Amino acid sequence: MAGKDRTAEQVILGLTSQMDIGINGNRPWDVRVYNDQFYNRVLKGGTLALGESYMDGWWDTDNLHEMLFRAIRWEQETGSKNPVYRVKWWEQALRSAFNLQTKSRAPAVAETHYNLSPRLYEYMLGESMAYSCGYWTQADNLDDAQTAKLDLICRKLHLKPGERLLDVGCGWGTLAKYAAQNYGVDVTAITIASEQAEYARKFCDGLPVDIQLLDYRDLDARKFGQFDKVVSLAMFEAVGRKNYRSFMQVIHRMLKDKGIWLLHTIGTERDGFDPWSDKYIFPNGEIPTKQRMVSSINGLFHLEDWHNFGVDYSHTLLAWYDNFVQHWPEIQQLDSRFDERFYRMWTFYLQSFASVFRSRNLNLWQLVMSRGCLDEGYVSCR
Amino acid sequence: MAGKDRTAEQVILGLTSQMDIGINGNRPWDVRVYNDQFYNRVLKGGTLALGESYMDGWWDTDNLHEMLFRAIRWEQETGSKNPVYRVKWWEQALRSAFNLQTKSRAPAVAETHYNLSPRLYEYMLGESMAYSCGYWTQADNLDDAQTAKLDLICRKLHLKPGERLLDVGCGWGTLAKYAAQNYGVDVTAITIASEQAEYARKFCDGLPVDIQLLDYRDLDARKFGQFDKVVSLAMFEAVGRKNYRSFMQVIHRMLKDKGIWLLHTIGTERDGFDPWSDKYIFPNGEIPTKQRMVSSINGLFHLEDWHNFGVDYSHTLLAWYDNFVQHWPEIQQLDSRFDERFYRMWTFYLQSFASVFRSRNLNLWQLVMSRGCLDEGYVSCR
Repeated sequence: MAGKDRTAEQVILGLTSQMDIGINGNRPWDVRVYNDQFYNRVLKGGTLALGESYMDGWWDTDNLHEMLFRAIRWEQETGSKNPVYRVKWWEQALRSAFNLQTKSRAPAVAETHYNLSPRLYEYMLGESMAYSCGYWTQADNLDDAQTAKLDLICRKLHLKPGERLLDVGCGWGTLAKYAAQNYGVDVTAITIASEQAEYARKFCDGLPVDIQLLDYRDLDARKFGQFDKVVSLAMFEAVGRKNYRSFMQVIHRMLKDKGIWLLHTIGTERDGFDPWSDKYIFPNGEIPTKQRMVSSINGLFHLEDWHNFGVDYSHTLLAWYDNFVQHWPEIQQLDSRFDERFYRMWTFYLQSFASVFRSRNLNLWQLVMSRGCLDEGYVSCR
Repeated sequence: MAGKDRTAEQVILGLTSQMDIGINGNRPWDVRVYNDQFYNRVLKGGTLALGESYMDGWWDTDNLHEMLFRAIRWEQETGSKNPVYRVKWWEQALRSAFNLQTKSRAPAVAETHYNLSPRLYEYMLGESMAYSCGYWTQADNLDDAQTAKLDLICRKLHLKPGERLLDVGCGWGTLAKYAAQNYGVDVTAITIASEQAEYARKFCDGLPVDIQLLDYRDLDARKFGQFDKVVSLAMFEAVGRKNYRSFMQVIHRMLKDKGIWLLHTIGTERDGFDPWSDKYIFPNGEIPTKQRMVSSINGLFHLEDWHNFGVDYSHTLLAWYDNFVQHWPEIQQLDSRFDERFYRMWTFYLQSFASVFRSRNLNLWQLVMSRGCLDEGYVSCR
């Protein structure tokens, strides 16, 4: 029972050889296997087991990102179905049948992920504290790419001094601070993560930024008034298909007539679900498809602009990884949860997402939409 | 029977008064009614009768574009259903049930519209011979706006010298000529309008441009090879919902792996159909919705960029109208069909479309898509 499973080993060796990934070879993306049960575990448990066995130290590689990229690219180019990437039918069915992102369930991701010590994120994200894809077209380092992204959003929104901006899912207040400081707008920003709200209040101290601990479903135009502009940055991934329409309806009622708003979200060309990241990183997350996106805004907004720069997320994630590794000695001191297993989990998270964006299985979308009829139309920028 | 219908008159007067359009008033957008049957005809016959009664000279206005814009804007702002704009249920049902754009039916629009004397279009379109929306962001006249549009397309396609470009629906060869001349590409261009093909061959004389009289369904990669880039400009409006998917499959097989292509088309936020323009201007045309667009490319292409500049079409159409009016004395001499009724028909066409684009009931979309996985992603421009 505990013996080596020769069949599983043969299958995995056959697959990895097609992907040009060596087992116990010496190229950076080759895999070193430290536990004979690895093959059987991965073949039975799919990507969840691949990630968990990595966390357990059963295998390693010098370039995890490149190794995973080769696996995905092989699948894309051959049209083969990689048995390791299979998703159980009930994991998909669950999302069709149930609302996994109700108001009472929504805090799960905040607790698991966003309420981790802000110091961890400070080390990883750098001074911007922007936890979303940077814009690398004219940048060659993380800070510049994040500033370029923030400025791109403000320019796309045509922000003007004195306008009121609503930021739905504000994180640590990065965009709220940038927009208030550089574009003279008055910001109301919401998050459901208490650690983030507290941090954001300090981060935006002295600026006309009002941080509210609030679920988007509780946004009320009678309480907050309507806004000239709305932005939602890297939060739609937690909304879930059952709530896309009501999310859009909330934005619609909070936005003034002839107002414009920008949605920045990960997107995918086809439905997919990764059980490992659902369990360890983003519980109840769901990446929208084009079809669901378009249906959710139908009749509510004009689609003015749709920008895809997903490969930039690969650069961003690898820059975060470099920061994480460099500051690991300090990060370890922050919290007893930050142990060796956490280090390997976080490594798998950043490196695997980088490979998925590089392979284009995930995209990064910025959509600009308008309410009512903009008399002069919308002029977009890049 | 031939007497004045007081009820119809009251309804129309009530409606136009809400739209702030005067009947027999003296503002530019007020309407002068020359035939008492006008009210009854329009109320019974909808937009078709509105256009036909205009062609018959039963009514007039000094600013047709502004008058129609006010009617549409009233409907948008009040949420009212303008009885004049109703479309009979069977006109919509027809499009769901039948393929109105089969290969044998496709030439209808070429015969009705594109095979009219090229001289008419030379006068109207100016030197570019570009029969599609210009790009006015940094232009203040038609020629500059058309050059800006052509250059925008070439830049979005990242054209490089020596590349092979396929132009699906090439009109009089405008883009083929511009791309070959300014970006050093080798162009194969198709149209189903014989007058256009003949014109395009002369227009592109001496350049590496091969004009073929061909339906898109007959494009064969074994005959023409695959292309680095593909473009389709203002032709998708004639494809029809039943053929969107096969159109996309044709592009997919003609485009090399890692190739990009650009679709320039009118688009709409919701299904609609105008019986007047279907009868007189674009037989069997159909404007795509976002939903149909997204479904048609699903699994074939990555969506890289979606640009909407519909208001620019209003400027373009009014510039065409100015050219048309200015050159009417010469145009009249070209063809016995170019009589007073044609003049009024063409006026109604250009002015009504300008109002529809200004009101945002129609959009102008440019989508950039890629086949396979672009290693470095796609960098877009504006």
